[in-house]
Amino acid sequence: MSIQKPRTLSGFLELLPEKQALFDAMVERLRSVYARYGFSSLDTPLLEASEVLLAKGGGETEKQIYRFTKGDTDLALRFDLTVPLAKYVALHQNELVFPFRRCQIGKVYRGERAQRGRFREFYQADIDVIGDGKLDILNDAEMPAIIYHAFTELGLDRFVIRVNNRKLLNGFYAMIGQEEKAGAIMRLADKAEKIGLETVGLALREDLGLAPAAAEEILSFMSIRGENGQVLARLGEYRGRDETFDQGLEELEAVCRHLAAFGVPESHFQVDLSIARGLDYYTGTVYETRLLDYPEIGSPCSGGRYDNLAEYYTEKQLPGVGISIGLTRLFYVLQEQGMLNPAYLAAPAEVLVLPMTQDLAPAVALATGLRQAGVRTQLYFEGKKFKQKMAYADRLHVPFAAILGEDEIAQGKVALKNMETGEQVLVTPDQAAAAVEAALAPRRGARPIRER
Amino acid sequence: MSIQKPRTLSGFLELLPEKQALFDAMVERLRSVYARYGFSSLDTPLLEASEVLLAKGGGETEKQIYRFTKGDTDLALRFDLTVPLAKYVALHQNELVFPFRRCQIGKVYRGERAQRGRFREFYQADIDVIGDGKLDILNDAEMPAIIYHAFTELGLDRFVIRVNNRKLLNGFYAMIGQEEKAGAIMRLADKAEKIGLETVGLALREDLGLAPAAAEEILSFMSIRGENGQVLARLGEYRGRDETFDQGLEELEAVCRHLAAFGVPESHFQVDLSIARGLDYYTGTVYETRLLDYPEIGSPCSGGRYDNLAEYYTEKQLPGVGISIGLTRLFYVLQEQGMLNPAYLAAPAEVLVLPMTQDLAPAVALATGLRQAGVRTQLYFEGKKFKQKMAYADRLHVPFAAILGEDEIAQGKVALKNMETGEQVLVTPDQAAAAVEAALAPRRGARPIRER
Repeated sequence: MSIQKPRTLSGFLELLPEKQALFDAMVERLRSVYARYGFSSLDTPLLEASEVLLAKGGGETEKQIYRFTKGDTDLALRFDLTVPLAKYVALHQNELVFPFRRCQIGKVYRGERAQRGRFREFYQADIDVIGDGKLDILNDAEMPAIIYHAFTELGLDRFVIRVNNRKLLNGFYAMIGQEEKAGAIMRLADKAEKIGLETVGLALREDLGLAPAAAEEILSFMSIRGENGQVLARLGEYRGRDETFDQGLEELEAVCRHLAAFGVPESHFQVDLSIARGLDYYTGTVYETRLLDYPEIGSPCSGGRYDNLAEYYTEKQLPGVGISIGLTRLFYVLQEQGMLNPAYLAAPAEVLVLPMTQDLAPAVALATGLRQAGVRTQLYFEGKKFKQKMAYADRLHVPFAAILGEDEIAQGKVALKNMETGEQVLVTPDQAAAAVEAALAPRRGARPIRER
Repeated sequence: MSIQKPRTLSGFLELLPEKQALFDAMVERLRSVYARYGFSSLDTPLLEASEVLLAKGGGETEKQIYRFTKGDTDLALRFDLTVPLAKYVALHQNELVFPFRRCQIGKVYRGERAQRGRFREFYQADIDVIGDGKLDILNDAEMPAIIYHAFTELGLDRFVIRVNNRKLLNGFYAMIGQEEKAGAIMRLADKAEKIGLETVGLALREDLGLAPAAAEEILSFMSIRGENGQVLARLGEYRGRDETFDQGLEELEAVCRHLAAFGVPESHFQVDLSIARGLDYYTGTVYETRLLDYPEIGSPCSGGRYDNLAEYYTEKQLPGVGISIGLTRLFYVLQEQGMLNPAYLAAPAEVLVLPMTQDLAPAVALATGLRQAGVRTQLYFEGKKFKQKMAYADRLHVPFAAILGEDEIAQGKVALKNMETGEQVLVTPDQAAAAVEAALAPRRGARPIRER
């Protein structure tokens, strides 16, 4: 038989078991945080009819889309979770209750040029709140709390959530007579961190043709920094000159007002006038996040407020606010940086039962008892030598081996070996379950990420 | 703007939030059972290179495969989880520890003719144990225990796991001189339940051209029924006439020997000589399951032993044994039959906080406290009338509403309303968290399926 060389497509992450366990732990923890905030989990198809998925048309992602025909159906793999949400909400609008809060953690597909750390198949972990006609600004205020708790639950602490408001920006540009160039200015402002304020100023004057005074005003506005209260106070000085600006400022103040009550420390939240999410469809609040030690990741969690989710599918006005975590890339960078938590129990089992006798009945009964006690237990069946059995336990990185020979069976006991300390005790099966529980309990809360 | 009518592709299951919660619960429970038996969870790509995925070629599924090109790459969506496992094990053979135990719960794609209850995108929930060169028969014996605990954990009780052995069958056919027709006979035998033994007899004689005596022997063999001990005893009478048969019988006995120690009741396990998994690549033990009240579902969980997992990708001999649950179809049929458990907490939140004041700070603080106490809490922000707020709570099916007006705030309390009984109590936030916990604790163990 001819052998086909096995390979995994480039740009598709495929993890070894222990890494996968850590990735799964991140997914589980995000799910549990999202659930704690009252979001319904959805699981829409990976494939959609192309005319539905691409109803909006154009866009930078269109050429990256995996699109094909099967029979006479034109199909496409989803490239984000927002368009399928729009379709879902429009399709099921009469069966859903608004505000509708949904979370979805799933794979999306973009045929980008393959490069290190860029993926063609990757997970997004999204939440959105969709209103029917109206949606209170306090929904925007809750998002930073969810981001804060989600990141904390993963094990991250050195991060900051940055918030701005597009109305505030648009209003400001209108105030200085640059309404028409607002989009172009925002896209430039978005790059400020990368290229520096000076280069932004140059581009404002030379590429966008702004008068030096206007460019100066923009730079000075973008430079407003400090504690959130200070920034809001400085912004208050512009009040009364433009209605849109005033509305944006009011929204931003509302988003900041309840931070403490939501449990978000000041240290992890920053009003930042330089962020704009230039290419996105946001219309009010915008969010970005930054890992303080890894700014090069960009923003692992971003989002914002939009006026109308599903305008391509329904006449109904559906405003919303949401965030999305780019989970695959985040995981990839963190593991590259050695930030996966070695204390996390990533082995496939907590106890490996090693029978040393011909008759396996006692070992089977022991494993069944441990499992009933909630211990993740693997039973080793292969007729290998003692040394090979122990080597297997070692390579599997199980924290405990339960060795069951003639002597142990005769005494109704088991030799429980702590594979990390080497310590071995002779105990009853019940004691073994309790000992494992006691030893592992402190590690069960271990978060998948550990910052140094 | 022109409106694109939203739709979901036919053959693609898309659930409303409460149904999705029950589906997710099934997935979670399967994950937790698989983990308790020491399986590593994998998550391989949905897309593979076609020459890799279709290395085996041919097969009944080939024309159902979603295959297309992107740029100059020929791609295909996976149609099961076994071929990707074979690729994975071959590719990572030097990094894995054997026996390698993996579970994977994921979507697969088959472009079948669409019909009610048949899906083109569906979940499989697989486990497999892969040995390096050899794999002990006790691994086969553990599978029924996993099936039993998985089904029980879902809430099913009226099912039976049926087991047979292909060596036993092949050996028997050889014994009566029908070795060459073994495959065709097995495929016929597989249908016995549907078409009846008499029709099988007719087909054996007329379609396969067997002598009446041979056909009679086969029918008589297939009719061996009774308790497992009795069946094995009857089979023992054939011993010594064919080596393969004897080996198959020995394996079958080994699979049955430790059932009790594995915690599987006799009532849920049956040696059944009529099952053969005719079209599959199994070489020893084969498994099927049957829901006693819904035989029309077919076998929601099937599997078996195979000699060589990855022969298309590597020279290494990798025997294995595994099972697969067709989760989407199982869920679909159970919900059609009204078997989803109404006691399961499928609402997006356990408590809905309803602020009745302008200032939302106390409501935010209450929700934050409840969440910290582990209660899934949604905060209602919209400025609607009391009646509309209560109607929202009703439609969401949340078990509790926490109403916070001027009076409650002044007293440092909250009006906690049990939405099912209508009972309302005035309590402190801490008492509210405790009351919710106490009321919902009995329901937290609720299984997603309830048999009547």
